[in-house]
Amino acid sequence: MMFAMSSSHAIEEGTTLTPRYDASGLVTAVVTDAANGELLMVAHMNAEALAKTVESGEAWYFSRSRQALWKKGETSGHVQRVVELRVDCDQDAVWLRVEQQGAGACHTGRRSCFYRRVPLGQSGAVTLEFAEARAFDPDAVYRKP
Amino acid sequence: MMFAMSSSHAIEEGTTLTPRYDASGLVTAVVTDAANGELLMVAHMNAEALAKTVESGEAWYFSRSRQALWKKGETSGHVQRVVELRVDCDQDAVWLRVEQQGAGACHTGRRSCFYRRVPLGQSGAVTLEFAEARAFDPDAVYRKP
Repeated sequence: MMFAMSSSHAIEEGTTLTPRYDASGLVTAVVTDAANGELLMVAHMNAEALAKTVESGEAWYFSRSRQALWKKGETSGHVQRVVELRVDCDQDAVWLRVEQQGAGACHTGRRSCFYRRVPLGQSGAVTLEFAEARAFDPDAVYRKP
Repeated sequence: MMFAMSSSHAIEEGTTLTPRYDASGLVTAVVTDAANGELLMVAHMNAEALAKTVESGEAWYFSRSRQALWKKGETSGHVQRVVELRVDCDQDAVWLRVEQQGAGACHTGRRSCFYRRVPLGQSGAVTLEFAEARAFDPDAVYRKP
């Protein structure tokens, strides 16, 4: 007699991509620099963004603030070529290892969105430390002509 | 005459840690191996988990499924010592660079939760490829005596 695999077993140990989208239809996308492991950004994908990324090998996301599909770099030219795409155990997050084209990934002008350090060993209010300088001028890159 | 900084400017360019928690009171926590940049896991933190992480230098999270605070490694012994903590531009995600104690971070027995690769250049159904073998026996590590 055969028993079906439990749902969580199939999600964790299976070879079928079955993304577990949240209530807004999104999975979390973690984007690291394939060259050095630096975390560049965290974004979100709906099913269409994920399909376009898989098909094209370039990163597409879904903007929660604009409620719109977007290709990374469509305004800035800072396209992300996906070297490797992975999915996590419970299939609600994906990991993109990318070649970041252009000067950076962050709309503030830094290479990484994670340009501020949180000092450890403190309680109460924390003063952030800048760990990374601007790599490009966001006004020049994002302002349309 | 002085003008107050815009709220988004203060969040992006300020030195005050002001996490932007979602409707469930959580920020996204991305956890990489400080030694090699490998993405180990994605989890979530509420204000208490973030405060405990900053104070102790060890990783605490909030489990959405169990709706409970947890210290990584409290059952498995696989504690994460935080080497560096960063926050992203809009302060809704944090990046932990950690020293992973024990054999791995994933409850399935792998070092990383991202143990399956999504092949690129395809449309339609996708067959995942296993990129990482088990590093420990989860039944032995997580089953209480």
